[in-house]
Amino acid sequence: MADRFRLEAIGHLRTPFPDKFGIPRQAGLVDLPGTIEMVPPYDERAFFEGLEEVSHLWVTFLFHRNLEQGWRGRVRPPRLGGNRRLGVFATRSPFRPNHLGLSVVRLHGIDSRAGREVKLRISGVDMLDGTPVVDIKPYLPYADAVTGARGGFASAAPEPRLKVRFTPELETRLQAMPQGAELADAIRALVALDPRPAYVAGEDHGKEYGMALYRWNVRWRVEDATGEAVVFGMEPLEV
Amino acid sequence: MADRFRLEAIGHLRTPFPDKFGIPRQAGLVDLPGTIEMVPPYDERAFFEGLEEVSHLWVTFLFHRNLEQGWRGRVRPPRLGGNRRLGVFATRSPFRPNHLGLSVVRLHGIDSRAGREVKLRISGVDMLDGTPVVDIKPYLPYADAVTGARGGFASAAPEPRLKVRFTPELETRLQAMPQGAELADAIRALVALDPRPAYVAGEDHGKEYGMALYRWNVRWRVEDATGEAVVFGMEPLEV
Repeated sequence: MADRFRLEAIGHLRTPFPDKFGIPRQAGLVDLPGTIEMVPPYDERAFFEGLEEVSHLWVTFLFHRNLEQGWRGRVRPPRLGGNRRLGVFATRSPFRPNHLGLSVVRLHGIDSRAGREVKLRISGVDMLDGTPVVDIKPYLPYADAVTGARGGFASAAPEPRLKVRFTPELETRLQAMPQGAELADAIRALVALDPRPAYVAGEDHGKEYGMALYRWNVRWRVEDATGEAVVFGMEPLEV
Repeated sequence: MADRFRLEAIGHLRTPFPDKFGIPRQAGLVDLPGTIEMVPPYDERAFFEGLEEVSHLWVTFLFHRNLEQGWRGRVRPPRLGGNRRLGVFATRSPFRPNHLGLSVVRLHGIDSRAGREVKLRISGVDMLDGTPVVDIKPYLPYADAVTGARGGFASAAPEPRLKVRFTPELETRLQAMPQGAELADAIRALVALDPRPAYVAGEDHGKEYGMALYRWNVRWRVEDATGEAVVFGMEPLEV
């Protein structure tokens, strides 16, 4: 039996994350919007008939930016402070054989033009912008929502860890922007999850971080005095 | 960006199902045992460290027997009696682009020899014997068990539909077999789900069905008078 197979992208994800830093570590932690743009010949509306009845989707995708880096048999999950090593198959690490990712997302609607060019409006995304999608399946609660399952090292959802505030100048600027309120909410939710590498948290007060969100580089640091995260800058990303 | 990728089998499934007919239509419906046999270089015990703490796994696999038949944009799910057509992405049909399957299974234990030759003991399988595995991930309840999700056409688990009995001769033979009781339980559970094509159910009384289970061809029919399934024969499968 041949044990090599060819995969093809059936679509691409559009998400608020042009860069890895700051992406929530599982789907659904922050309810940020995204889109799946199907590519021909997979973009026919008829191939999605019945999917409107479903509230959530499984998206199987490729960690495409990690393909060249290969895989690692043992990894240090950020959830464990980067100290404990686990086997790659005990984690959802992107540095895995075949580089397959799996996320459940909420489905909000299906757009198309003249029965083609299907775009799925989703939320709860945790993928890089541009990620290749290789499968879409309905979430089936009776089979997929396992009651009483134990998740080992990651049984509970990570709690927001940082209190977040904006400088008065940035707050004023955001208020003046169209959709500035939504953007502020997204920044607050993402920074609160504390995207810093686990091994520096608590030892890097004052260090400046830049987090790419949509077309912005959002700049923040953790204050020495209060331990709060202060968001102090926002610049257009250089492309 | 290149949009074609290569997949490699990291292991193979050993299941009671040498043939498609009779396989439950989702994982977990019948708690039948199986094994994932890892292949080198993915068979090191260290790559699974920490997985013992997890009760359930996601197994991503390939519908390898359907590769040559390609994919269909619209399908007739058996759950809907084979009458209604849905788009392939609204279903878990095996005739899908990239032929990826996804099942959650229970993990019972991890065997290995001298730190290699890893075999995962699992149950709740719904895959063909010999299925290539392309990924194994821990089930994370906080991210994967979505409360209140709607599953559309397949919101509820299929109920057992047939009452099942054995002929006295077969019952006696099963009682005399080592592990005959477990085999009888498995046959009962699988036939009760009614593996007949939906469009014939109710119109094929008296027709004989053969269902491959382990190394047996299990023979049964639905009685005209009672509507019960009667299991009347069991022969070694011809290989």
